[in-house]
Amino acid sequence: MTRHGDELTERLRAVSAGRYHDRHPFNVRMHAGELTREELRRWIANRFHYQRHIPVKDALILAKFDDPAPRRGWLRRIRDHDGEREGEGGIERWLRLGEAAGLKREQLLDSSRVLPGVRLAVDGYVNFCRLRPVLDAVAASLTELSAPDLMRTRIAAFERHYPWIDAEGLAYFRTRVDQGARDGQEALALVLEWARTPEEQDRAVAALAFKCDVLWSLLDAVERGNAVGPLSGGAA
Amino acid sequence: MTRHGDELTERLRAVSAGRYHDRHPFNVRMHAGELTREELRRWIANRFHYQRHIPVKDALILAKFDDPAPRRGWLRRIRDHDGEREGEGGIERWLRLGEAAGLKREQLLDSSRVLPGVRLAVDGYVNFCRLRPVLDAVAASLTELSAPDLMRTRIAAFERHYPWIDAEGLAYFRTRVDQGARDGQEALALVLEWARTPEEQDRAVAALAFKCDVLWSLLDAVERGNAVGPLSGGAA
Repeated sequence: MTRHGDELTERLRAVSAGRYHDRHPFNVRMHAGELTREELRRWIANRFHYQRHIPVKDALILAKFDDPAPRRGWLRRIRDHDGEREGEGGIERWLRLGEAAGLKREQLLDSSRVLPGVRLAVDGYVNFCRLRPVLDAVAASLTELSAPDLMRTRIAAFERHYPWIDAEGLAYFRTRVDQGARDGQEALALVLEWARTPEEQDRAVAALAFKCDVLWSLLDAVERGNAVGPLSGGAA
Repeated sequence: MTRHGDELTERLRAVSAGRYHDRHPFNVRMHAGELTREELRRWIANRFHYQRHIPVKDALILAKFDDPAPRRGWLRRIRDHDGEREGEGGIERWLRLGEAAGLKREQLLDSSRVLPGVRLAVDGYVNFCRLRPVLDAVAASLTELSAPDLMRTRIAAFERHYPWIDAEGLAYFRTRVDQGARDGQEALALVLEWARTPEEQDRAVAALAFKCDVLWSLLDAVERGNAVGPLSGGAA
C-alpha cells in the first residue's frame, strides 16, 4: 500500500465511522430489540425497495467499465443478487426474510408499503451511479466495507430479540458477511488505483459520504413511517 | 404465436431483409473475396470498436430490467463477450481474429485505427441503449436474428477466399452462430410480449431500422477509409 493509499483509506474509514447507518437511532433500536413487529416489517418492506435496485445500480456501474477484467468482478455482484436461477440470490433471500417476518412476498413485490422518502433515497443513489463518473459510483459502494460487522451484529440481535422470525429468514444477512467483505475490498482496490489527484480523492470521499446519507435517509423515512406526510388519499 | 405476434415478426423480418448490412457493398465484396489484406484489416480493427462496446450497451439494457428473471438471460450476453476469465470470451476471440489477420492486439486495443464514422456509429448505438426505453433498446438488438446466416456465409467465404487467415482466427464467427440464434430468439420473445399497441410496435420496428443503419454506417466508414476526410494532422 502506498502512502497516498493509506491516507485515502483512512479518510474513507473515517467517513464510515462517522456516518454509516449502524449509528442511526432506528438501527440502534433494531439491534437493541426495541422494534415492534410492525416497525420491523416496515423496515423489511422498505429496505427491499433498496435491495431490488442494487442490480440496477450495479448494471449502471458495469456500463462504465472499458475492459472485460473489471466487468467480470462487477458482474458477480449482479449474479449474487439475482441468483443463477429462479429461487436463488440475494433478492430471493430478502423475500424469504419478509416471509419469515410475516409479510407476504406480494407485499414486498408490489411496493405498496414503500414510503416516499425511501423512493427518493433509492432513486438518488441509482441516479448517482447513472450520472457520475465510475470513480464516484464505485466509491459510493464502499459502505460494503462496513457491512460485514453490521451483518454479524444484526444476526446476533435478531436471534436474541426477535425469535419469532425463523432463523432461516436470516440467510440474507449470513450470506452478505462474506460477499460484503469481498465486494468492499475489490471496490477499495479500484478506488485506490484510480483516485490519484487530491481532487479525485476528495470526490471518492464525498461519494462515500453521499452514500452514507442515502442509507441514513432511508432509515429516517422508515423511522418516521406514516406519522407525518400528505393525508392519505389527499392527492388522489 | 398470436396474430399480432405474427404480424410484428413479419414487419421486423422485412426490416432486416431490406436493411441488414449483409447487403452493404463492402460486405458483398468481403464475402466475394475481393477485399485486399489492408481492407480486411481495416474492417477487423474498426469492427472491434463495435465489439468491445457490446457489453457496455448490454449493461445499459440490463439496468432497465426490473426483475431478476430477464436480467439473468441478459447477463449471459455480457459473460459471452467478456468470458468467465482472462483469455476467454468474444472480445478475446475477436482479438485473435485480428492476430490471425496480421494485426497486433495493441493495434486493436489502442483504437488508433478507428475511423470517425465508426466512432459515431458506435456512440449512437450505445447512447440509444442508454437513453431509450427498454422495448426500443431490446428491439434494436434484433439484428441478432440475421447474424447466424451471416456468420455461416462469412466462415465459408473466409475459408475459401482468405486462406492466409488461420482458421482458428474464425472462432468468433463460429461461436456467434449459436449464440446469435439464441440471443435473437430471446429478444424477439421479449419484444413480442411488450409491443402491444400499434405505437409500441412502430417503435420496435423503428429501433431495428435504426440499428441496421448503425451497422450500415459502420461499413460505409470502413469502405471509405481515409480516402475522404480531414487532412491528417490538420486539427492537431
